[in-house]
Amino acid sequence: MIAGGSPGPGETVAGAGERGLIAALAARLPPGPRTRVGIGDDAAVLGTPDGSVVATVDLLLEGRHFLLDWSSAADIGHKAAARSLADVAAMGAAPSALLVGLGIPGSLPARWALDLASGLAEECARAGAAVVGGDTAAADSVVLSVTGLGDLAGRAPVTRSGARAGDVLAVAGALGRAAAGYALLAAAVPGFPELVAAHLRPRPPYEAGPEAAALGATSMIDVSDGLVADLGHIARASGVSIGVETARLDVGEPLGEAARAVAASRPSSSGTGAGTPGGDLSPLAWLLTGGEDHALAATFPPGVALPPRWRVIGTVLPGAGVLVDGSPYAGPGGWEHFR
Amino acid sequence: MIAGGSPGPGETVAGAGERGLIAALAARLPPGPRTRVGIGDDAAVLGTPDGSVVATVDLLLEGRHFLLDWSSAADIGHKAAARSLADVAAMGAAPSALLVGLGIPGSLPARWALDLASGLAEECARAGAAVVGGDTAAADSVVLSVTGLGDLAGRAPVTRSGARAGDVLAVAGALGRAAAGYALLAAAVPGFPELVAAHLRPRPPYEAGPEAAALGATSMIDVSDGLVADLGHIARASGVSIGVETARLDVGEPLGEAARAVAASRPSSSGTGAGTPGGDLSPLAWLLTGGEDHALAATFPPGVALPPRWRVIGTVLPGAGVLVDGSPYAGPGGWEHFR
Repeated sequence: MIAGGSPGPGETVAGAGERGLIAALAARLPPGPRTRVGIGDDAAVLGTPDGSVVATVDLLLEGRHFLLDWSSAADIGHKAAARSLADVAAMGAAPSALLVGLGIPGSLPARWALDLASGLAEECARAGAAVVGGDTAAADSVVLSVTGLGDLAGRAPVTRSGARAGDVLAVAGALGRAAAGYALLAAAVPGFPELVAAHLRPRPPYEAGPEAAALGATSMIDVSDGLVADLGHIARASGVSIGVETARLDVGEPLGEAARAVAASRPSSSGTGAGTPGGDLSPLAWLLTGGEDHALAATFPPGVALPPRWRVIGTVLPGAGVLVDGSPYAGPGGWEHFR
Repeated sequence: MIAGGSPGPGETVAGAGERGLIAALAARLPPGPRTRVGIGDDAAVLGTPDGSVVATVDLLLEGRHFLLDWSSAADIGHKAAARSLADVAAMGAAPSALLVGLGIPGSLPARWALDLASGLAEECARAGAAVVGGDTAAADSVVLSVTGLGDLAGRAPVTRSGARAGDVLAVAGALGRAAAGYALLAAAVPGFPELVAAHLRPRPPYEAGPEAAALGATSMIDVSDGLVADLGHIARASGVSIGVETARLDVGEPLGEAARAVAASRPSSSGTGAGTPGGDLSPLAWLLTGGEDHALAATFPPGVALPPRWRVIGTVLPGAGVLVDGSPYAGPGGWEHFR
């Protein structure tokens, strides 16, 4: 049994038992400022001072969204929390809470589950949120569901549908680095710790979400499927075209160096990686189609003075679809789950 | 492609594609009265008029929580929604919204996913809630995460920790019927449609949750692990003992008849089903340890006049643990996920 929240060395999830595991997890998950009833009851209760709540859910599956060989338990906790809380921020809300469904093989070390909880708690703390509830189940492989909640503080939500021709397009946070990190890991190329970390532990710019809302952003999205794909969602929902200028993207080192290192590691005629994120080795492709950095892309009325973390990369135009340097983008548009 | 929300005959999830599938699912999931931003953006936005929100998550996995051979897609939708919304009701809240994470093999018929959505929507409608958001992912087997949100309408939440010696214990909703239905299905005994339905599509008494809160319930829980196990949660959290009187439980037909039919179907020395829900064939064991009916158990101050759907089945006592007819219960206490 887990005693006092500390598993014995080598103790498994099954050995700890459900109640012991939950108690040990809860000990690593402190309540947040909005928590009225936290972990341990049928449901959590949160304060929502402005009379509304933002809510989103993401599912992360071992083998599809993460690999236990590549990611530590803490990495997975960070990444899972980031994925959900970035969606909350993309509505212009401040993240307040996370609920976590955890399916886990009984044979995994209890320590693994506790490190996952620590990663979740740390990423929540970065975003100003707290884990307030969850569910556990035995599973054949690790399954994570992350529900993010957030607080608009009286502002209107920033949806995907408000972009207007003439608006400027800006991005906060990293682009293409998680895709480069994925390609480096897939090719087993050593080095580039910053890019590998971008894949394993993305750092969404949470504060930029409410900031954009306060600046009058007309639309916003979490870049999770890839820049072109996600701008396509805004273009469709808003009934506009969106133009990206690649000269404004940061297509420099270390992405170029990483692309050369990955290319050098491959047999010349290999098709390895085609159709997977990062399968195209061009840094520009990583920037345009890599999603897992969880940058925020938003449109703003022309003339708005943007803080430095918002980099203008294009404009909103009449029409439909996404244009890259004036032309429809010819590469793969981003991630498609069921192909 | 799914056109106009209707998949072609035999079309698979992979054939429909993620965007087509989501559009077709969304067409079956109407917004509810609290929905300000619904399906299709980075996150949903819900009204929370009393300045708080109740939130809970449950994970349901194919092969552990349901079997595709036993349950139709609509059954699974009903059951998944019920599991989460009953937790919301057990806090004394009216369910308002559901978010659904769906992992699904690309080879499943698109029709299956749409029927699942219809089941989710129908159960939400029973509870006064609506599906407001979700996520889809390709998976090797069906994975469902259901996040329930609810509204306390200004009442304090009813937690597990407020039971006091002298309170009465009462239950609303069915007990033991889902466990009987499980045993019938496991033994392939025909007939007993009402009990089988209780397993496949439990019907939690959602309205009884806010009703109990309004009546001054001192503690409440969703009976999901089994009556004895869940009363144990209240006893521990409240620092009391809880006594159940079996004479007040409805140990009659059709449970007795079902138990005899299951017993008659088994080889006399078979151990089949031991350790599984419904593995013990006594109707009393089903009543005391079967959880999936999602009844609500609550404690009330002595002397409260209870509406008929709340059946008094025991009392709260000084001490610790759960007593059945004055003695600690000797059978299995209920469901343990990692054994």
